[in-house]
Amino acid sequence: MSLYAVIMAGGVGSRFWPRSRRAHPKQFLDVLGPASLIQNTMGRLQGLVEPENVFVVTHADYVEKTKEHLPAVPEANILAEPVAKNTAPCIALAAARLYALDPDATMLVLPADHLVQNVARFQEVVRAAVKRAETREGDAPGPLVTIGIRPTHPETGYGYIQFDADGDTDGVADDGPADTPKAHRVRTFAEKPDLATAERFLESGDFLWNSGMFIWRVEAILDAMERHLPEVHALFAPLGEDFGTGRQAGAVADAYARTPKVSIDVGIMEKAEDVWVVPGAFGWSDVGDWRAVHSVAEKDERGNAAEGHALFHHTSRSYAKARDGRMVAVVGLQDVVVVDAEDAVLVCHRESAQKVKDVVDYLGLHGLEHYT
Amino acid sequence: MSLYAVIMAGGVGSRFWPRSRRAHPKQFLDVLGPASLIQNTMGRLQGLVEPENVFVVTHADYVEKTKEHLPAVPEANILAEPVAKNTAPCIALAAARLYALDPDATMLVLPADHLVQNVARFQEVVRAAVKRAETREGDAPGPLVTIGIRPTHPETGYGYIQFDADGDTDGVADDGPADTPKAHRVRTFAEKPDLATAERFLESGDFLWNSGMFIWRVEAILDAMERHLPEVHALFAPLGEDFGTGRQAGAVADAYARTPKVSIDVGIMEKAEDVWVVPGAFGWSDVGDWRAVHSVAEKDERGNAAEGHALFHHTSRSYAKARDGRMVAVVGLQDVVVVDAEDAVLVCHRESAQKVKDVVDYLGLHGLEHYT
Repeated sequence: MSLYAVIMAGGVGSRFWPRSRRAHPKQFLDVLGPASLIQNTMGRLQGLVEPENVFVVTHADYVEKTKEHLPAVPEANILAEPVAKNTAPCIALAAARLYALDPDATMLVLPADHLVQNVARFQEVVRAAVKRAETREGDAPGPLVTIGIRPTHPETGYGYIQFDADGDTDGVADDGPADTPKAHRVRTFAEKPDLATAERFLESGDFLWNSGMFIWRVEAILDAMERHLPEVHALFAPLGEDFGTGRQAGAVADAYARTPKVSIDVGIMEKAEDVWVVPGAFGWSDVGDWRAVHSVAEKDERGNAAEGHALFHHTSRSYAKARDGRMVAVVGLQDVVVVDAEDAVLVCHRESAQKVKDVVDYLGLHGLEHYT
Repeated sequence: MSLYAVIMAGGVGSRFWPRSRRAHPKQFLDVLGPASLIQNTMGRLQGLVEPENVFVVTHADYVEKTKEHLPAVPEANILAEPVAKNTAPCIALAAARLYALDPDATMLVLPADHLVQNVARFQEVVRAAVKRAETREGDAPGPLVTIGIRPTHPETGYGYIQFDADGDTDGVADDGPADTPKAHRVRTFAEKPDLATAERFLESGDFLWNSGMFIWRVEAILDAMERHLPEVHALFAPLGEDFGTGRQAGAVADAYARTPKVSIDVGIMEKAEDVWVVPGAFGWSDVGDWRAVHSVAEKDERGNAAEGHALFHHTSRSYAKARDGRMVAVVGLQDVVVVDAEDAVLVCHRESAQKVKDVVDYLGLHGLEHYT
């Protein structure tokens, strides 16, 4: 049994405008620190997955950029999507590729653009999840396992996973230290809640944030896909023979042209029966917008965070990013985000960070694509 | 009797950072529209004062820039101050120069960096003020006349002038149309008030904003100076013989080295007896900071004003200035000012615009002078 990682890197991340661009999406940004998010994602696999066992699924436009950012990943392991169709086709493609390579493979699926602050703990949680994923009854293909994040506040921007706190945690040693990660049966997946519901979830103790990280035997996900997303399975499962041949690009393009857009959560996880979650707390964020960047960034006593040359005067709870050689000065404001990019400046209320996407849409619709 | 204009252009205007710089102060900025503030000041003299009768007093560092901006002004009419000592020495220098040229001169003193929207009305008001300044009793040198602005709101950032609404308005035709500008005797000068006082001033009807524009016969100001600022008078009055000779620079430097720093208001206007004011309403602003720029700029229905490429989303009562080829996007904010300059971006609450000066001070004190 070998562990493979699949990094999902297909997003555009327009909420990171003006730093994210069509040609340079979020996963390639050094949002927090010197390395890009995708490089950090790769980095936290060290000691867990060999580089030659790391696969990346990304948009065809980003293959070159992926090679530049992840030189240790073999070129053939970068799988190009001709068009984004959400996570289920992406995972179907990677599963077909892995199954052709190693039918006994275990597959760790990670978004390319998340933040993990405690990598050691992250690895412990992954190992527990792998152990659970690889423990199966008889000939059964094995369970589907996900990683859930212990919520730290009533976040309304994430989906939640409710687990069975009283149930069995088989597959994982119960006799380790108290903080040994344990797998629990999933009771239900919940969509992004309103604030009152999020507060209830936080209170309850058995709700976790849905991190979008998955661990399963490739056989298990293919089996679940055949059951719950048969049309997607039918398009992607036969691709196995085409990988590494001249037919690969054409066959993949064909499957993507025909597949519906569907997420792995809605298409499979919410329907499958043998689903487990390992709760973890390792300083995770999906870094979904500039507000999230401020939230995880190192702040001064007034709650201000800066990257580059910034000056805060009578200002609190704010974030400023200045380009090299430039200065950003923020005066008399609270809760603002200022991002200075090569040809644009964004000034945004922290709580309006999601609306940055509208700006990108507007620019695209008004002949200002060169700013997007 | 010839009319001469003296444009006072010695300021640094650090509240206009990041656009104003030590080497490029406010009066040379195109703050509102294509021309610089000093060019607009010159422009509104057209038909009123001949270019060869326009004098500019500015810091020695800005002489070259002044020549560039005002090519119609004879080079010899640009008087260099070696150091800024407030308005009284500046006016003393110009008065000495004018008296040497034409002892019967009338002198119109204008700050270089104010805004006037209705130039025709401005000229009517100036003509009334000139008429008052040139009307004297017997051998008396004549009154000191200033222009007061009809207040439009309880501004706390300006000084005020109270006039005698019931008194005589001699020197100016009382038989013209109702809106003919009239000169009134000044009762008192008031410092910048608090809000309650400013509201009372506005209510009263006989308080005007102190515009810093003056009209007087050069003989009258020299006489008043001899009386109220004898030490300044003693330093500058003898300079007459030195202008246009090799001694000019040295003599001026010597006078500036010795003169106290004193404003014409405190030093003379508040003490002199024969002081008059012509109330005017011509869309005036001292454009003292970015808040004032927003206040006089053309705004959309949400109260937003832009120069260059700006996009306001869920934003109101804000001002954004983008550099050529750059975009400023403001999202989810009210009452902000965003100014994108070559090497810096300012993001400021509208009501904190005065604090921008602190930023410049801070930068200067922390080895970041290159941003100032």
